[in-house]
Amino acid sequence: VGLPGTNEVEMLQEIVSFIASEEDVPICIDSSNPIAIEAALKVAPGKPIINSVTGEEASLSAILPLAKEYETAIIGLTMGNGGISRDPERRLEIAETIIERALRIGISIEDIIIDPLVLSVATETQGALETLATIALIKEKLGVNINIGASNVSFGFPTRQTINEAFLALAAGSGANCVITNPRSHFLSIRSIDILLGRDPYGANYVQHYRKLKKQSTTE
Amino acid sequence: VGLPGTNEVEMLQEIVSFIASEEDVPICIDSSNPIAIEAALKVAPGKPIINSVTGEEASLSAILPLAKEYETAIIGLTMGNGGISRDPERRLEIAETIIERALRIGISIEDIIIDPLVLSVATETQGALETLATIALIKEKLGVNINIGASNVSFGFPTRQTINEAFLALAAGSGANCVITNPRSHFLSIRSIDILLGRDPYGANYVQHYRKLKKQSTTE
Repeated sequence: VGLPGTNEVEMLQEIVSFIASEEDVPICIDSSNPIAIEAALKVAPGKPIINSVTGEEASLSAILPLAKEYETAIIGLTMGNGGISRDPERRLEIAETIIERALRIGISIEDIIIDPLVLSVATETQGALETLATIALIKEKLGVNINIGASNVSFGFPTRQTINEAFLALAAGSGANCVITNPRSHFLSIRSIDILLGRDPYGANYVQHYRKLKKQSTTE
Repeated sequence: VGLPGTNEVEMLQEIVSFIASEEDVPICIDSSNPIAIEAALKVAPGKPIINSVTGEEASLSAILPLAKEYETAIIGLTMGNGGISRDPERRLEIAETIIERALRIGISIEDIIIDPLVLSVATETQGALETLATIALIKEKLGVNINIGASNVSFGFPTRQTINEAFLALAAGSGANCVITNPRSHFLSIRSIDILLGRDPYGANYVQHYRKLKKQSTTE
């Protein structure tokens, strides 16, 4: 909804209202405009997620109070005034800043989700490795929830899903536990990672979803 | 060729001869019978791999001299007299034993490939995690080549390829660099891991193989 020529404040609120009327799920609100975010929060059901706050002062002081007031979870992007650093240690520092500021105004640690940022490997050959190193570092030092925007990594490539699936496994293996992706594209691959990381004993959940998928494809 | 009722010594040699007459590639000889392995080595072209030696004395003293005499590479399975240990530290110890014995009779370190063993997650919920921990430990402590038999992990599941692909990415992320698998099943997924781990700058190799695959499917 943040396209040029649209009124983001009105449109974001309208779309959140519409989705809430159709689906009984919490909503992740993706905007950098605090006014649009607040308009959406007024109509969002349940406990939303705000996506996102950054380490920049203007963002911290505008977005974090909204998360506190509306009791939402919040995604913190590890970028600051200098943009996106290539150095995992610097991204860790920004995560620490966001967490410290959020805790200070009373947001709970379990409601803070850090996003270590994913660059396309089509332009940055070491980009995925840097993200994986950042995930492992944040997991080890801070132990918070970690989100990735999985599909960014393959921007510019053919057969993006193949690359995305490998990246999802690598990121989960490094410690990421949230993902922004099309759930229909990765219906079984995400659940196969759960089996492999010991989170789905005997694959019971995997097999249940496999049967659901098979039933759907037979019915269609 | 190790089925009951077959003469493994004759059949392994015959099959290796046949493959060598059809394809110009080095061969990985999979047997635990030293007599069958030697019969095959006599007709194998180029530099074969022997799969495998274990940490058991009977295996070490029978197989390692063959690897030395025929100048092959060798896969060492991290299992000893007590079978397969669930403990990554114990598997590391067995890898150390195999490497020490191999180096002592003059096999080069780059010709030693350690296989940390993969159990099916259908019966061992922590099995993949144990293998991943073993891979990371062997990589860190010993720095040798590491092989996995990727498809074992999904034995007993439907849509095994989905699980195998996630496991390949997790294993490569932990440090595995060799794999026993059907290369046709993982034509692009293995190459996507290379991009993500920074081993294929700008995905040049990936895109080349993607085009080859596309051309084949158009021709068929």
